[in-house]
Amino acid sequence: MTKRAGQRSRITLTGIAEAAGVSVATVSKVVNGRSDVAPATRAHIEELLVEHGYVARGAGGSQSPVRTIDLTFDALINPNNLVITHGVTEAAAEAGVDVVINVAPDDPLGAAWARKVAHAEREGVILVTSELTPGQRAQFDQAGIPLVLIDPMNVPDDHVPSIGATNFSGGMSATEHLLRLGHRRIAMIEGRHDATCNTARLHGYQAALAGAGISPDPRLIKPGNFQFKPAYEAALELFALQDPPTAVFAANDAEAFGVIEAARMHGLRVPQDVSVVGFDDTVAAGTSAPPLTTVRQPLAEIGRAALRTLLRLAAGQSLDSHRVELATQLVVRDSTAPPPGHA
Amino acid sequence: MTKRAGQRSRITLTGIAEAAGVSVATVSKVVNGRSDVAPATRAHIEELLVEHGYVARGAGGSQSPVRTIDLTFDALINPNNLVITHGVTEAAAEAGVDVVINVAPDDPLGAAWARKVAHAEREGVILVTSELTPGQRAQFDQAGIPLVLIDPMNVPDDHVPSIGATNFSGGMSATEHLLRLGHRRIAMIEGRHDATCNTARLHGYQAALAGAGISPDPRLIKPGNFQFKPAYEAALELFALQDPPTAVFAANDAEAFGVIEAARMHGLRVPQDVSVVGFDDTVAAGTSAPPLTTVRQPLAEIGRAALRTLLRLAAGQSLDSHRVELATQLVVRDSTAPPPGHA
Repeated sequence: MTKRAGQRSRITLTGIAEAAGVSVATVSKVVNGRSDVAPATRAHIEELLVEHGYVARGAGGSQSPVRTIDLTFDALINPNNLVITHGVTEAAAEAGVDVVINVAPDDPLGAAWARKVAHAEREGVILVTSELTPGQRAQFDQAGIPLVLIDPMNVPDDHVPSIGATNFSGGMSATEHLLRLGHRRIAMIEGRHDATCNTARLHGYQAALAGAGISPDPRLIKPGNFQFKPAYEAALELFALQDPPTAVFAANDAEAFGVIEAARMHGLRVPQDVSVVGFDDTVAAGTSAPPLTTVRQPLAEIGRAALRTLLRLAAGQSLDSHRVELATQLVVRDSTAPPPGHA
Repeated sequence: MTKRAGQRSRITLTGIAEAAGVSVATVSKVVNGRSDVAPATRAHIEELLVEHGYVARGAGGSQSPVRTIDLTFDALINPNNLVITHGVTEAAAEAGVDVVINVAPDDPLGAAWARKVAHAEREGVILVTSELTPGQRAQFDQAGIPLVLIDPMNVPDDHVPSIGATNFSGGMSATEHLLRLGHRRIAMIEGRHDATCNTARLHGYQAALAGAGISPDPRLIKPGNFQFKPAYEAALELFALQDPPTAVFAANDAEAFGVIEAARMHGLRVPQDVSVVGFDDTVAAGTSAPPLTTVRQPLAEIGRAALRTLLRLAAGQSLDSHRVELATQLVVRDSTAPPPGHA
């Protein structure tokens, strides 16, 4: 490894600057990945750096170790994680920080994993959708590793920094959209009962109904666990009611797809016979039949904010707030329409 | 950072082994993340390691630097990448290697990126769905960085190791499934024309038709670019033909969803009026309306194989073959049925 670094350290920044006809400061900016360099200038300097085999001082040694943070998921199934990862890596590239990605096995925050992170001397850890116990929290504190949670299922105490979306107002805007279309019997399929984001979405739904003078019918609120299959079954039950809903708000997109499939099996057309709204705006939301009206979570932005928050913590800076929620946005596609027979 | 390591180096492996009543070799296996330790024993040892604040010798120093590899995507939009990432991280965890994830910006393999990878002294790089030019290849060779491609769009020369799926036989099995159901007019919507995997899937389709004594009708082969929208438009054209197909094989799942949506817009039911087969088995394939019959790519297995291949290269070992293809498998769901009027 040192051989490689040695072979390539053939020219200084000053030499590159002279060859490019720019200042050393400009070359330095390119080397450090700063964005305030004109694209053409950057390309020319990068060419020269490669041509001359420039390797920054300290490469391979201990003078300028690569800064890394750890991005850990309890599972990678959720397509949201792809967008979060994109946001984190984008912000990390800007900051010159490497992102080590981990999928924590069965035990989301096992002792072996915590030990490994401490051993590897990460600047900090971003955890996605994890349930942090007080004991695990203590482990991080003891090891002195900064920690930021993204959209945690539960927030164990007020002092764990976390980034999420405005779930309450997202639930409200989904329901208000259906109310504006003329729907009055609007069902909701809940997500996981122990998830704070689910509680917020449910209360947003209830607040919107209350605002329209409608008292929620408990028979129209069903569990769905954030999954396709339970939501599919819940929707079949809803459609079999004597007075079925004309619209369903699902707590996430996977559930909404379950509702659409249940409608198909029940011989109902979406949106002509029943409207469906999801939550997330996953990639699949744009390609379902019909394309899904849903509440967009700003997942890339959440990933970027988590990375920046983590670096602030790692630098010993204080945070303005331990909980930050970024705005959701209703995306109207083809799964919602006025109820049947509506003027 | 050294403070942290110092604080926690309080006990040796021998001490942990004595406390756990196991051999030092067993403790060592747990520390090194080997899998051949009984779960209960592993859990007990891990508890002791944390309790005693064990940190491996060399932590924070240069004696046992953390081994890292680089996993780079040209984009993170494709949900397949989530599964590939899972496979890579799983195999990496077994090998005790860290995975740094990168999304290469506009220029998939820019000079700045190559320099950064060399600077950071990765053991190697796994590149996903990238188009490698001979010049970029030379850059890697010069830097001495082992490289493995996953499912490259084009294979620039025979000596770049790459891992993919059996695209030809996948295309055959999709088409043969439709033939077995009784379909004779089977359309195909192609992926990107410059992608070798697309060519292989197309030839698999043609081989299956030829095997059934059917000469391909060129009007039934349409471009789709691996995307929802072009496939949607292509399917609308197919359905408007005087003699429309009764089944469509799409080169990936996103295209298949476009075909399903086009069928809905055209007033056709899937699968009663038209059958649709995709390729990939993305997460969304199980939750579309109807759930999609598709050809599963073994993406997690491909990720694992890529990681192991890379570590062989990094260790200076030779490969049995520079190209490895893992088996695809037809997954039959609800988007395929016999053609209308079929006995």
